[in-house]
Amino acid sequence: MDADRTPHHPDPRTVSLQQVLDALVDPVRRSIVTQLDGARADVKCGEFDLPVSKSTATHHFRILREAGLIRQYYAGTARMNELRGAEVEAAFPGLLAAVIEAERAAQGAGPGGA
Amino acid sequence: MDADRTPHHPDPRTVSLQQVLDALVDPVRRSIVTQLDGARADVKCGEFDLPVSKSTATHHFRILREAGLIRQYYAGTARMNELRGAEVEAAFPGLLAAVIEAERAAQGAGPGGA
Repeated sequence: MDADRTPHHPDPRTVSLQQVLDALVDPVRRSIVTQLDGARADVKCGEFDLPVSKSTATHHFRILREAGLIRQYYAGTARMNELRGAEVEAAFPGLLAAVIEAERAAQGAGPGGA
Repeated sequence: MDADRTPHHPDPRTVSLQQVLDALVDPVRRSIVTQLDGARADVKCGEFDLPVSKSTATHHFRILREAGLIRQYYAGTARMNELRGAEVEAAFPGLLAAVIEAERAAQGAGPGGA
């Protein structure tokens, strides 16, 4: 059993709006949730396209998990990430979807965008 | 003419998502936009219910104005504030409405709420 390797995942309904916004105000963390939202399946920590070191990325994943925005679990030795989209939508209607939409628009308008 | 007393108001479409979220991540500034959204008319700077000094409030109004979220103008000697709801909605669909809804829900759930 991997139960002792599974970190804490708060119910998004118990997370404050402040904590959710503190998580989403960081551009690396917005990139993580936007990539997760656009992925066809859950994503390994090492498979994100991020401009930071592995240890810094690990910090950002933890902030997102503690804010109720992502679920992390092990598949063998890989730590997988899943967006808790439906649960977050129930707790903060429209918020995450609006941030992801705006993030995609900003990326599209940027120098690397379409 | 009051043109030289009217501060700069950027078009919300030219403001970055980062700047908008940096503005909305602060609880005093969320309180300001939520009070403006619930007001029947534009609100004088001195008429907000805020837990900060007048000079600190002035700083928060400026951050909101520079993020394209509020419009400030003079009516006689009073500085008035107006939420730029429709313009922000066009630039960042759903975002401000979701933040205000969540802010109201958080206030309602708090010790001072209904």
